[in-house]
Amino acid sequence: MIRAAVVGATGIVGQQFLVALKEHPWIRVNALAASERSAGQTYRNAITDRSSGALRWFCDEPPVEEVMDMPVANAAALSTGEVDIVFTAMESGPAKMLEPKYAAKVPVISTASAFRYDKDVPILIPGVNADHARLLETQRVRRGWQGFITPTPNCTTCGLAITLKPLNEVFGINSVVMTSLQAMSGAGRSPGVIGLDILDNVIPYIPGEEEKVETETQKLLGQLQGDVIQAAPFGVTCTCTRVAVLEGHTEAVLVATRKPCDVSSAIKAMREFAGGDDISGLPSAPQQMIVVNEDPFRPQPRLDRDNDGGMATTVGRIRPDHVLENGLKYVLVSHNTKMGAARGAVLVAEMLIRDGYIGK
Amino acid sequence: MIRAAVVGATGIVGQQFLVALKEHPWIRVNALAASERSAGQTYRNAITDRSSGALRWFCDEPPVEEVMDMPVANAAALSTGEVDIVFTAMESGPAKMLEPKYAAKVPVISTASAFRYDKDVPILIPGVNADHARLLETQRVRRGWQGFITPTPNCTTCGLAITLKPLNEVFGINSVVMTSLQAMSGAGRSPGVIGLDILDNVIPYIPGEEEKVETETQKLLGQLQGDVIQAAPFGVTCTCTRVAVLEGHTEAVLVATRKPCDVSSAIKAMREFAGGDDISGLPSAPQQMIVVNEDPFRPQPRLDRDNDGGMATTVGRIRPDHVLENGLKYVLVSHNTKMGAARGAVLVAEMLIRDGYIGK
Amino acid sequence: MIRAAVVGATGIVGQQFLVALKEHPWIRVNALAASERSAGQTYRNAITDRSSGALRWFCDEPPVEEVMDMPVANAAALSTGEVDIVFTAMESGPAKMLEPKYAAKVPVISTASAFRYDKDVPILIPGVNADHARLLETQRVRRGWQGFITPTPNCTTCGLAITLKPLNEVFGINSVVMTSLQAMSGAGRSPGVIGLDILDNVIPYIPGEEEKVETETQKLLGQLQGDVIQAAPFGVTCTCTRVAVLEGHTEAVLVATRKPCDVSSAIKAMREFAGGDDISGLPSAPQQMIVVNEDPFRPQPRLDRDNDGGMATTVGRIRPDHVLENGLKYVLVSHNTKMGAARGAVLVAEMLIRDGYIGK
Amino acid sequence: MIRAAVVGATGIVGQQFLVALKEHPWIRVNALAASERSAGQTYRNAITDRSSGALRWFCDEPPVEEVMDMPVANAAALSTGEVDIVFTAMESGPAKMLEPKYAAKVPVISTASAFRYDKDVPILIPGVNADHARLLETQRVRRGWQGFITPTPNCTTCGLAITLKPLNEVFGINSVVMTSLQAMSGAGRSPGVIGLDILDNVIPYIPGEEEKVETETQKLLGQLQGDVIQAAPFGVTCTCTRVAVLEGHTEAVLVATRKPCDVSSAIKAMREFAGGDDISGLPSAPQQMIVVNEDPFRPQPRLDRDNDGGMATTVGRIRPDHVLENGLKYVLVSHNTKMGAARGAVLVAEMLIRDGYIGK
Repeated sequence: MIRAAVVGATGIVGQQFLVALKEHPWIRVNALAASERSAGQTYRNAITDRSSGALRWFCDEPPVEEVMDMPVANAAALSTGEVDIVFTAMESGPAKMLEPKYAAKVPVISTASAFRYDKDVPILIPGVNADHARLLETQRVRRGWQGFITPTPNCTTCGLAITLKPLNEVFGINSVVMTSLQAMSGAGRSPGVIGLDILDNVIPYIPGEEEKVETETQKLLGQLQGDVIQAAPFGVTCTCTRVAVLEGHTEAVLVATRKPCDVSSAIKAMREFAGGDDISGLPSAPQQMIVVNEDPFRPQPRLDRDNDGGMATTVGRIRPDHVLENGLKYVLVSHNTKMGAARGAVLVAEMLIRDGYIGK
Repeated sequence: MIRAAVVGATGIVGQQFLVALKEHPWIRVNALAASERSAGQTYRNAITDRSSGALRWFCDEPPVEEVMDMPVANAAALSTGEVDIVFTAMESGPAKMLEPKYAAKVPVISTASAFRYDKDVPILIPGVNADHARLLETQRVRRGWQGFITPTPNCTTCGLAITLKPLNEVFGINSVVMTSLQAMSGAGRSPGVIGLDILDNVIPYIPGEEEKVETETQKLLGQLQGDVIQAAPFGVTCTCTRVAVLEGHTEAVLVATRKPCDVSSAIKAMREFAGGDDISGLPSAPQQMIVVNEDPFRPQPRLDRDNDGGMATTVGRIRPDHVLENGLKYVLVSHNTKMGAARGAVLVAEMLIRDGYIGK
Repeated sequence: MIRAAVVGATGIVGQQFLVALKEHPWIRVNALAASERSAGQTYRNAITDRSSGALRWFCDEPPVEEVMDMPVANAAALSTGEVDIVFTAMESGPAKMLEPKYAAKVPVISTASAFRYDKDVPILIPGVNADHARLLETQRVRRGWQGFITPTPNCTTCGLAITLKPLNEVFGINSVVMTSLQAMSGAGRSPGVIGLDILDNVIPYIPGEEEKVETETQKLLGQLQGDVIQAAPFGVTCTCTRVAVLEGHTEAVLVATRKPCDVSSAIKAMREFAGGDDISGLPSAPQQMIVVNEDPFRPQPRLDRDNDGGMATTVGRIRPDHVLENGLKYVLVSHNTKMGAARGAVLVAEMLIRDGYIGK
Repeated sequence: MIRAAVVGATGIVGQQFLVALKEHPWIRVNALAASERSAGQTYRNAITDRSSGALRWFCDEPPVEEVMDMPVANAAALSTGEVDIVFTAMESGPAKMLEPKYAAKVPVISTASAFRYDKDVPILIPGVNADHARLLETQRVRRGWQGFITPTPNCTTCGLAITLKPLNEVFGINSVVMTSLQAMSGAGRSPGVIGLDILDNVIPYIPGEEEKVETETQKLLGQLQGDVIQAAPFGVTCTCTRVAVLEGHTEAVLVATRKPCDVSSAIKAMREFAGGDDISGLPSAPQQMIVVNEDPFRPQPRLDRDNDGGMATTVGRIRPDHVLENGLKYVLVSHNTKMGAARGAVLVAEMLIRDGYIGK
C-alpha cells in the first residue's frame, strides 16, 4: 500500500481527500496535517467545535471514522519519512511555501494553484494529457528534488479541457468561448459565498478565475516537446459567474474547429473518447470520461453532477453554430469538488502509481 | 387622455401593465379583457381565489385599486369602440387569432411573439430603432387595417439590443456571442418554473428562446430601406439558461467589432448613448438607457435590476477579448418584466403617441 | 413473488414506487396504470415529452429500465386479475372513485387521503401501530371486499407520529404543539410550488395540512378497542409552512408529557424505540426508526433526510421546556417522499405480506 | 437638529443607520466611527475594497452620498463633545467596553445585546413600553452618567412583543409558544450564513437566540414598578431556525390568553393597537403598528416585510387553537433589519427626543 499524507486535512477539500481515499485499494492515509491551531490534537478534536460540541464536517458523505483518532501534525513541520505521497489542500500562499519542502522528499499532488504555471510543472488530467507526466522527471532533476509537485487544474478548467480534448484530436480547435455558471462549493467556506450575496442573484465575477481557465486549458491541451509544453495554439476566452448551486459547474461552450464538425460526429467523438487506454483500471476512473445526454434540457448540475461518482463530465445541447466558422455549441456539467478537486487528484495519483512515478 | 384596453389583464404580464399605467399622465385604462372564464366579473372577483378568498395578484407593487371594480370583458369579444390603443399580454396562440381583430380598428402593442417575425411588423425599442415605426404605415395599408400591431421584443433580446446599439453605431459589429442567465419571472406562472426544478440547479434550455434572440436582434438593429427591414449583417449566437433568480436577466456578451474598440471608448459610447433624442420627455423613459458600473462584481440581477425603475440596462465587466478580432466582453443586467415587458411596451406607446401614430 | 400494480405510475409518487420496488426481494411490478391520456402506450412513451423527446422522470434515482417497455393501462379499467396488491399514487378525487373498485378484489395501499378518516380504515406505520392492521378484517367483512384499502399517513404526520410513539409509551403525552417547515416535493409537480413563489420566501399555509396532521396523529397513536380505534386522548395543534427545500420536512415539536421526562430519558426512549419487533426483517425497514443527533445544529433537512435510505426519522435539539408542565422540545427531520410516501407504503406492504394480510 | 454619531458605521447595521438617518427631519449624522482598521480614512475609502475598487455597501438602498467624505474615527477614541446621541452597531464584546464610555457623556442607543439584561437598562419599543423609559433616570443616577444606554430588542423579539402587546392588554396572556423562521440578514456578514449551509436547507439552531427572545419578551411586556421592571408573569418558549430568506423574520405563534379570545376580537385588538398615542408624530413610526392580512397565504416575508417601510408587523392566519385553554394561533412577519434593528433604534431616539430624554 502507498502511504499518503493529507495536508490541510481539516478543511473542506482536505475532508474530500479523506472521503476519496476511504477504503482505497492502493493508497492508505497514514498522516494528517493542518495549520498550527489544529496541531497536536486528534483529528476528531481538531474538527470539533468547542462551544457546541458539533463536528465541523463539510462533506455529504459521513465522517471517515478510520482517521478520527489519528493525530494532526503541524503542516509546517510534517515529517515525510513515513509517507510515499503528499496530497495538499491548502490556500495558494502556504502551498507556495510548504509544497517545495515536501517535494524535496516525496511526490506532492496539489489542488492549489501555486505552481500550476511554472514551466516544469505539468497539470495532469488522466485521459487527457498523461504524456505530460514525463515533465516530472525534468522537474526533479532541475529542482534537485527526490519528489515533485503536480497540481490538478482549476475546477472550472477540468470539464472544459476534458470535453475539448476529443474535439481537438478529431477536428482541431481554432478558438473557444466559454461562460461558466459555477457552484458555491468552488469558493470553499472561509467564508466562501455568503448566503445574503447569492440568493436570488448571480455574481458575475470570480477574481482570477477567467485567466486561470484560459491559461490552464492551453497548457493542458498543449504538446510536450522535449521538456517544454507548447501551449495549445487556439485562444480561449471566458466569463466566469457564480450562481446559487451547491455543487457542479455548468459551462456554455462555443468552439470553432479547424475541420467541419457536425453534431453527430461531435457526439461520436465525445462518446468514444476513452481517455486513452491510460485510465482503464484506475480505481477512481469513471466508466466514461464524457456522458452525452441528448435530452435538450440536460445537463443540469443537480441531476448530472454525480454521474459516475462525480467523475464523468456530462455534455448536452450539442448543436451547430453559424456565427463562427465550423462553430459548435454545447453545455457541460462537471463536479467541481469530485473530478474537479480531491477525487481528481487521487485519480492523478493512481495514474502516477501505475506508471511508476510514485511508489516505495 | 389616450384610452387603453389591457387584454390578458388577469395574468402576471397583464397585471404589470396595470401597474405601469397606474396614474399615467397620458394614458388611462378604460377596458379590461381576459379569457372567457373571467368574463363578466369585476376585476377584483376575477382575480380572487374562490376557496381561500386570496387575491391572485402577482406583482411586488400593491394591487391597482383603480381597476378593481372595472368589468372584465371576454377577450374574444372585446369592443374596440371606446379605446385608442390595446395592450395585449397573451400567449402566442390566442394572440395570433385576436390581435388582428383588434388591429383592424386600433393600434395594438403586444408582448406576444406571434407577429414579431412578419416582414411588415416592426419590433420597437424607443431609443434604439424609432425609425422602424415608419413600417407601421406600410402594415396598415397592406393589411387594410385602421390600427396596426407592434410587438415588443423578447425580454432577453431587449438588453442585448440596447447595449449593442451604441457599439454598432460607433464601431460596427461583426459578430455577437451571448450566454444568458435568465430569471424565473420570464417564464410566467402557468406554471412557469417549478420550484423543484430550479432550486440548487440551472436549466440549460429555454425552448425557442435562442432563435428569438438571434433573429430579433438582427431585425432590431437592421436598417429600414424603403418598406423592408434589412437584418443587421452580423451573426448572433446564444445559449439561454434559466437560474434561480426572481427578476432580471443577466447576459454575458462577447462582441467582435469592425473597428478596434478599447474599453474606455466602449464605456464612453455606452454612457453617451442617449437613445437618440427620441426618448427624452417620454414619461416611462429611463434617465440613462445604459448605466455602466465599473465595480468588477457588478452588474448583479438583485442589485441592478431596478435601476431607473427597471428601465435602465446595467453593464459591467467591460474588458478586452483576445480571441476574436476586436473582441470586447461585458455583462449586462436588464429587468425582464419592466423594460423587457409591460413597462417597455408602455414606453413604445408613449413614443408612438408623441409621434402621432396613436391618438384620437 | 407478490405481483404488484402501480396506479398513477407516470407521476412523481408513482415513479417513487417504481424506484422503491426495483429489485425488491418479495414484490415484482407486473402492471402499470395511469390516466386515460397515457393508456395504451409503453411506459417509456407515456413519460416522453413529444416535442423535446425528453423523459419526464422526476426522481433523483435513474429511470427504472425494467418497466420501460411495460404497457400502461387506463387506471379506470385496470384488471386486477393478475396482481396481488395495488399501490396507488393518485389525487384524492380519482382515489375515492377507483380504489374501492380495486379493493373489491385485492389489497390496496394508497398514498391518497381519500379513505384515511373512515372508521374501518387503519392508517399504518410499521413499528408504530402494527396492531391496527387487525381492523382490515373488519373492513373486508363490512364492505364485502376480497381486498382492503390501507392508506399511508400524510408525509408530515409520519415523522411526528414516529417520534411521539416512544414518548407516549414511556411517559404518556398530554399535548403536542408542532410547527413544520415543509419541503417543496410534498406539493408534487402539477404545478406544485412555483419557483417565483418560494425563492427568498416562506409560504405560511398549506390548505388542509394542519387538520390532517392533527387528526391522523391522534388516530395513529390511538388504541384499537374491538373494531374501533379510540383516538389518542391528547391534543395536537399545528402550523404548517412551506420553505425553499427540495426534500425533507423539518418539524419543531413541543410536547407535554404526563410523567416528568428529562432530556436523557427522552433520548434513551427514542434510541431504544425499535418499532417493536415487528419491523425487523422487513426489506425496507430502517436500522433505527429514530436517529438522535446531539450536534445542536442538527437535524438539517439536506444533511439528514437521507439517513438510512430516507427511512429513519432524525431528531435533535432535545431540550426541556419550562412553559408547559413536563414540557420537552425537539426538532425532527423526516424524508417526505421516502418514509413519508412510496417507500413507506412499500414498508407497509412488506409488513402485511409477512403477517399474512397480503399474498396469493 | 440633534447631532448623532454612528459607531460601527462600516458594517451592515451601521450602514442601515446611515440609510435610516438620511434626510432625517430631527437628526443629523455628524460623526462616524469604526474599528481601528478604518480609522482616519474617509467613509468612502473605508468601505472601498482595495483590490477590486468595489464599494462594500450592503443595503438595498443606494449608498448615502452625504457621508461619503466624512472622516471615520476610531471607535475606541470617539470624542462625544460634538454629538447629542450615539447610535452603536457593534458586536457584544466591543459594545460592553465602549458603550459605557460614550454613555458617561451622552445617550447611547444600541443594537447590541451587551446591556439588555441589566436591571437598570430598559429595552424600548415605542408604542409597546414607552413608560419603561423612566428607568433611564435611575440608570443615570446609579451609574453617575450624563447619558445612558438603551438597547433595542433582538430582531426576533421585536415582532413577537409588538403582536403580544394588544393581546396582553385586552385578554391577558398565560403562555406563549413561538417557532421562528429567520432571515439570513439577521446573522450579518462576518460571515453570517454561508451559502453552502443554507441553500436547500434549514438550520434549526441559532446560538443564544431562544433565551434572548424569551427573556426580552418578558422584560418588554413587564411592568415598571418603582425602579424595577417586573418581568411579565407568563412563560415564553421558542424554537428559532434559519431559512433561506434574505430579509424578514416569520414567526408561528401560539398564545394562551387568560380571558377567552375569539378570532375577530383578536383581529380587532391588533388593528386598533395604535402603539398608544406615543408614536403619533414620530417621523419613523409606521401608520399601523400591526397590519392584519386575512388572505390565508399571508404573511409572507418577501411580500410583507416592507409594509410601511419595514416598520409595520404583519399578522395573518389568526385562528383558534383547541389544545391550550383559550388558545390562539397566528403567523407574523417583521422586518428584522428595519423595525428590528437600525430604523427601530432611530424610532426609539425620536421618542426619547420628543419626551426630553435626548437633546442639547
